[in-house]
Formats: sequence, structure tokens, C-alpha cells
Amino acid sequence: MEKISDVTIQPCSSTPYIKPLRITYTQDGVKKIWDAMKVHDSVCVLLYNKSRDCFVFVRQFRPAVYINSVVTEKQADGTETVDSAKYPGTLGLSYECCAGIVDKDCSLVEIAKMEVLEECGYDVPLENIQKITSYKSGTGVSGAMDHLFCAEVTDVMKTGPGGGLKEEGELIDLIEIPLRESRKWLFDEAINKDGELILSVLWFYDHYGK
Amino acid sequence: MEKISDVTIQPCSSTPYIKPLRITYTQDGVKKIWDAMKVHDSVCVLLYNKSRDCFVFVRQFRPAVYINSVVTEKQADGTETVDSAKYPGTLGLSYECCAGIVDKDCSLVEIAKMEVLEECGYDVPLENIQKITSYKSGTGVSGAMDHLFCAEVTDVMKTGPGGGLKEEGELIDLIEIPLRESRKWLFDEAINKDGELILSVLWFYDHYGK
Repeated sequence: MEKISDVTIQPCSSTPYIKPLRITYTQDGVKKIWDAMKVHDSVCVLLYNKSRDCFVFVRQFRPAVYINSVVTEKQADGTETVDSAKYPGTLGLSYECCAGIVDKDCSLVEIAKMEVLEECGYDVPLENIQKITSYKSGTGVSGAMDHLFCAEVTDVMKTGPGGGLKEEGELIDLIEIPLRESRKWLFDEAINKDGELILSVLWFYDHYGK
Repeated sequence: MEKISDVTIQPCSSTPYIKPLRITYTQDGVKKIWDAMKVHDSVCVLLYNKSRDCFVFVRQFRPAVYINSVVTEKQADGTETVDSAKYPGTLGLSYECCAGIVDKDCSLVEIAKMEVLEECGYDVPLENIQKITSYKSGTGVSGAMDHLFCAEVTDVMKTGPGGGLKEEGELIDLIEIPLRESRKWLFDEAINKDGELILSVLWFYDHYGK
């Protein structure tokens, strides 16, 4: 998972994944320009295993997190490299809720169910998945929707290994954090986490009075 | 604020604000490519006015939110336009915590203090600003740090109008939401909000036992 080497970073103007857009508009009579990009809406699922009173998160290497945690070296050809002996891949490991993009022709809760099975190996009935909320993510740059859910599972529902789709190169570890230890873990800033995870767990505390 | 017209959207490969990067690396012996971008770290401040028992948020027109809330029309020249009579600017209004990017040579809490004054007009003592947490934002694409704070203010600290820096074209409304009405408002999905706002308010409930 965290064995990372041969890291290079280079500017690219054209990518299938990030498409910058220039928006021009007039606001209250003043002409303005804003650069943004279109990204997919996403679904994010906080997984709570009732059998063992723990949350189940995914952990994966995130290149964007890694390059923001290291000092890069500029090369003569304009690229940047990273000394992966000095900056181990663990710096790029990020703890997140099970999640996926909205790119299928089915309901959001069905996408949530599929992601829980693919990434975490739990076959969870739809009625065990409840909506937390939906909000705008990255309002400055993307404005896409994040749809958050909470799924309550038991050990009986664990029908597969999870770990993501191997054919898509996904490499995902499952991490269980006991509810009683979760508050300390949640605010430990030495552990990389994203905002969706923190928001979802705080919702859980609020909703269930923990 | 929400009088929006003459909206055009066009692809742009080069922008000073969004610089796509291609990262190549080897993970567990497998060569991989990931596209990302560098964005500034940010500071975000949940403002609680103790005198009137309310949160103070900022509301502004976000082009990225707007174009994700409308149906665009493709033009012959490749640009897209929006019928602003059909899709009013209110669709792009977003409620957020007072926030700013980390681009100054001072501490995070000092940046937080400056943003509270610029955007909301409160001159808050540093000791009234407490850290909520820091986390990785947009782990898939940017991996920048979001630093969240909570500032407790009173009416006596209100020394200016707020509203942002006019010379930077900032156009910001202040919105007060009473604490007792905030839970209903927080989960009203018809009101555009970002994740930082929801996370911060849930932290407030958890921290103060509300």
C-alpha cells in the first residue's frame, strides 16, 4: 500500500480528469471572471458496524495528499521529483468514509449500497442506509454535490473482502475504529482525514446522542 | 448581490487559479498516474455571537455553485451560456463560514482574526478564537489543508461593516442564524451550504453539548 517511489510532478494543460473552465458573468452591473472546474457529484457513506460497535473506514494512498505533505525538487526539465526515501508513502495515506462518484443511472442510495459492497465487503439492505445530508463541496472551485449517508451493518452482512475494484487499480485497506475511541482519533491531526469523515462522525454523535 | 446575467462558460487550459498537475509514481511495484492540482491551504472561522445567541455566516454568489445548478446551452462557437432569466442568481448563493486562504506570513489564528474583521466586521481578541481541527480537503484532487476555528464574539466587538475587501471585488452579505433555529436550518438542503459550515456547527453542538 504505502511503498511509493519514482514520484514525478509536471504541469499539464489537458487532462481527462480536471477540466478548467472560465466563467464570465455580470453581477450587479459589474463584469466578472471566475475559473472553476466540473467534477462529478459524489456519495459518501459512514459505516457503523453494530456487532462490534465500531466505525469502518477506508484508507488509501492519495497522490494529492502526498505531494502536499512533501518538499519537491525541481529538475532541469521542469518536472519536480520527490525523495521517497526521505518522504515515505505513509504521508499520503488518507482515512475516509467509503465513497464513490455519481456516474450510474440509479438512485443515490443504491450507489451508496454498491460502494459499501465494493470497498468494504458488506451487503447492506437499503433500509439500513439513512441520509445524513447533501451539500455543496468546494464552493470556490467545483460546486459539486456531496451526498452523505450512514449505513448500519452487522458482521452477518460481511459477504466479501472489499478493497475496491482491482481492475480499476483500487487499493483500499479497511480500518475499524471503536466508537468509544473515535472522538480522540477524530481530532488527532497527525492522522490524515477528509472533511466528509469528520462531518459524518460528528453527525453520528449528534444524532445518536453519543 | 444576486443580479446575475451574461453568463458564459468556456474551457481554458491555462489559468492562474487552477493549475492541473500530472503526478506519476510507483505503488507496490505498479506504475500509476494521477491528475491533481495545487490550491492554497485555507482558514475557516465559525463565528458565534454570544450577545444575541446566533451564528454569523457569510453569503456570496459562487459561480461554480451556480453553473452546477443550471442547464447550460451550447453555442456554435463552443462556449456555453445560461439563461439567467430562467435560472436566477439566487441559485448560486452559498452560505459559508467566514474564510480565507493562507497566503500571509503570520500564524493561522492571526489570519482567522483578520478574515473575521474583513468579512464580518468583528474585532475579536485572539484568545476568543479556538481551534476546531485541521484536515485534508478534497483528497482526490487537491489535498490542501483546511484549518477550522471557532470565534466567540459580542456586539461590542462589532467595529466595522464587514462585507469583504471592495478593492478585491468581494461582495459578501452577513447572515445571522439563531442557535435555537440552527439545527433545522443546517439540514435544510434547499439552502446551499458548504461542508466546512456543517462540520463546524456540528462540532459546536458536540463541544458545548447543545
